[in-house]
Amino acid sequence: MSDHSEAPVTPVGPYEPPYYAAVFTTVRTPDQSDYSETNARMEELVKDVPGFLGMDHAQTPGGLGITVGYFRDAEALAQWRSNTEHRAAQKRGRADWYESYTLHVAKVERSHGFTRTRVPRSPTAG
Amino acid sequence: MSDHSEAPVTPVGPYEPPYYAAVFTTVRTPDQSDYSETNARMEELVKDVPGFLGMDHAQTPGGLGITVGYFRDAEALAQWRSNTEHRAAQKRGRADWYESYTLHVAKVERSHGFTRTRVPRSPTAG
Repeated sequence: MSDHSEAPVTPVGPYEPPYYAAVFTTVRTPDQSDYSETNARMEELVKDVPGFLGMDHAQTPGGLGITVGYFRDAEALAQWRSNTEHRAAQKRGRADWYESYTLHVAKVERSHGFTRTRVPRSPTAG
Repeated sequence: MSDHSEAPVTPVGPYEPPYYAAVFTTVRTPDQSDYSETNARMEELVKDVPGFLGMDHAQTPGGLGITVGYFRDAEALAQWRSNTEHRAAQKRGRADWYESYTLHVAKVERSHGFTRTRVPRSPTAG
């Protein structure tokens, strides 16, 4: 649900399990009219859902797109799922934007993260 | 773990829950030496794991990469996690290829898919 292009990019998480991940994998059609605007709106809307933790998005040009939304619990996910604007966007997606998609809703049992430690090139006092 | 470029791309389909999804989100360093070869090898290796269901990958150029591996059960996932070559690749990834990453291991509770139905342009009998 995202076309992030701002730098720098950082992966979401990890959070303390359990939490939920909604994995949305898509192949899009050539007709992407209104997609960007709707997508931007959805990105704003989802932030208002209590328990929304964050979202990762990657898009291979001309290929697969993957969006993963992270939610604290099933209630947060249910609230997002039942959002009226979100439902309208899903309907439009099936009508126009998506050639195919799969949604996997999953409860995260464990997670971990890694961030590279940079060694300073020229250490200075203080 | 994938740089799929073959067409056509199709998202891994919904399976009957429960199954596992390992969501691996990455930001890479400028040093990608040996990455493609190792990645291709991992893609082959994981197919030998009993219970491996499939893999989705998307990569925003210069941005986030997301790989999702799907496994029938925790045993399949554990077998992949303990694979010797896989562990060596992970170590190399932390040393050279990844600026940061997060791994979320999650049990899929529900899933569904959508595939566009094409209306034939000129219907023919038979």
